[in-house]
Order: sequence, then C-alpha cells, then structure tokens
Amino acid sequence: MTSKRLTFVTGNANKLKETKYILSQGTPIEIDSQDLEIPELQGTTQEVALAKCRRAAELIGKACITEDTALCFKAFNGLPGPYIKHFMKNLGHEGLNNLLVGFPTTEAWALCTFAYCSGPGAEPILFEGRTDGSIVPARGPPTFGWDAVFQPEGFDKTYAEMTKEEKNDISHRFRALDKLRAYLATCDIADTY
Amino acid sequence: MTSKRLTFVTGNANKLKETKYILSQGTPIEIDSQDLEIPELQGTTQEVALAKCRRAAELIGKACITEDTALCFKAFNGLPGPYIKHFMKNLGHEGLNNLLVGFPTTEAWALCTFAYCSGPGAEPILFEGRTDGSIVPARGPPTFGWDAVFQPEGFDKTYAEMTKEEKNDISHRFRALDKLRAYLATCDIADTY
Repeated sequence: MTSKRLTFVTGNANKLKETKYILSQGTPIEIDSQDLEIPELQGTTQEVALAKCRRAAELIGKACITEDTALCFKAFNGLPGPYIKHFMKNLGHEGLNNLLVGFPTTEAWALCTFAYCSGPGAEPILFEGRTDGSIVPARGPPTFGWDAVFQPEGFDKTYAEMTKEEKNDISHRFRALDKLRAYLATCDIADTY
Repeated sequence: MTSKRLTFVTGNANKLKETKYILSQGTPIEIDSQDLEIPELQGTTQEVALAKCRRAAELIGKACITEDTALCFKAFNGLPGPYIKHFMKNLGHEGLNNLLVGFPTTEAWALCTFAYCSGPGAEPILFEGRTDGSIVPARGPPTFGWDAVFQPEGFDKTYAEMTKEEKNDISHRFRALDKLRAYLATCDIADTY
C-alpha cells in the first residue's frame, strides 16, 4: 500500500507531535519534518503564512506544509496575533494576563493557519482553524507556549489542563488540520511514493 | 557646486519632512523619496532594518536610505518595539496607555534606525538613535503616530507638544540622522551628481 508522505517545515517539537497525531487519525499520511530558518513577515496571519510556506517549498524543493499560530485578543482588535510568540517570550504567562488589566474584556481567539504548497513556485493554500476562549491566570503544565493561559469557551480547563484527546477535539490546530486532512485526501502529493 | 542626492524609500510624509529638515542642516544632501511596498520582517529592530534597506536598494537599483521606528516599553522588555505601528493602529493613544495599566512602570524608549545601502547587493549600515521617556495620556496634536503619548525624560512636554526645533534637538530620529549625516559627509554616494 502506498502512503502519502509530506514534509512539515517546523522547528517546534510540540507542534510536530500534535500534527502527526492529528493527521494520522484515519488517513495514511506520513509526516516528516525539517527545521529551517525562515524569516517571518509582519502582516496579517494570512500574509505571514503564505510567505513562509512559499519560501519553505523553494528551500526544500518539494511539497511541504507550514504552520503559524496567532493568539488574538478581542480588546486589541486581534493583536498580538502573529506576534504572540514575541510577547510570550518577553512577558510570560503572567505578563499576557497583565496586558489585559486595563481593558474591559479578556476574550481571545486562538488561530491556527496551516499552509500547503505543492512545490517551488506554486501558490500555497491556507487552512485556518479558530477556537474562541479567554485569557486566564496560568493553570496546568506551563510547557507548551501559552496553552496554560488560554481557556476555550464552554470549558473550565485551560488547554494545558486538558488531555491530548480533549484538546485535539476542539483546538484551533485540530480545526485547521481537519481541513488540511480533507484537502490532502483529494489530491496527489508530488512526493507520494 | 555638486550636491549629494540620496533616495529615502518611505511612504510616510511626516518622516520624510523631518528627515529632509534634519539632513539639510549644514550639509548639502538632497533627499528625494520613493514609496515602495516592502514587506517588513519580524525580528529585532536591526534585522527588520537591514532586510528592508537591502530590499529597497535592490528594487530601486541604487543607493538609498530607509527608516524604522520602534517604541519600546521597559515593562515589556522592549516590545511592542518594531510592531508599534500595528499596536498604534489597532489601539490608538488611549490603548497604548491601557496596555501598561497592569505593569509597574510606564518607562519607554523611542528607537530610530536609519539604514544606508550603497547599492544592490551591498550590506546596509545602520545608524541608531534612542530617546528615553515614558508613555503618558495623549497631549498635543494627535497627527504624527504616537508622538502625543511619548514624553521624553527631563521634559514636561510630549513630542507632539514640542516645536519642531525642540523635538529635533532631542528626538530619536534626530540622533540617528545625526550619525547618518556624519557618515554621509565622509563617503561618496554613487548617485552624486
């Protein structure tokens, strides 16, 4: 039996693990990974994702996927958005909460954008997944980015407090990957063997 | 008499006006401008500036200068930094103040980075100017970016309340341009005529 094989260009072990797990559910797609230094643009989440995936496909010379995560505060009209990793790094979990002290709402949404590019020179296709929630004081293991301060709407647990299965049922990453998985099932990947 | 002529790649009329004014003081450098759509990177202020100027010189095919402004909050370890324009756009003057409500200090510094690239393929040279101050409720004309909420250390006026001369004596942009001016006085610009 042939299985599809696709390269995920990422240096983030946690994202790779989640992606492999979600994409392995029900479809024979094997994911390998490559860690490349790709400069990220400023701009909308879509612009950031398109530029990164386009460049990744050029660099590895074949089809690939890339992922971008944004954490968007309602009070900030969507910021920090694609810049969340810089804020997480500089401010930590407590700082992310402190950012919102002067604003009337802690509502936020997590946005995952997977991009698929069929090869060098091709225009990437985007798959977005969004989960609404709010920013709360950190609870749960603090190891995966801002998971400990994001509580999805309708739940009393943060992402970090959820089991893998609970999180993957409703996460922004799952929702984006579910769309990517459906797309990949319909198309030939040049790298299939 | 020959005069040096240099292209400032910018779409910001206010920055162009300040730059022309400051560079015209005592040196025969004529500045023209060109407004190009150059994607900006995420990264340090230096990385952002180098990439933009390198690309600008490639696009116009000759020597040029570019400018990047960052507004750095001490409480955020330097952020929003190069992302300030997105925060200014989404949050406005009041929002920039509100960001700091949950933090112990409103101290900030304004950082201007001019980059000079002698032509396509050449590595740009950076000229940084920094002015320390703090974030305050807006005072003065609200027309030039975040000038109305930045009060330089040792002054009781915001940038926006200062006369052109007062601001240009101490501003981050003046300090960077002063270094650039000194450098340009020592070198041949390929575009001199």
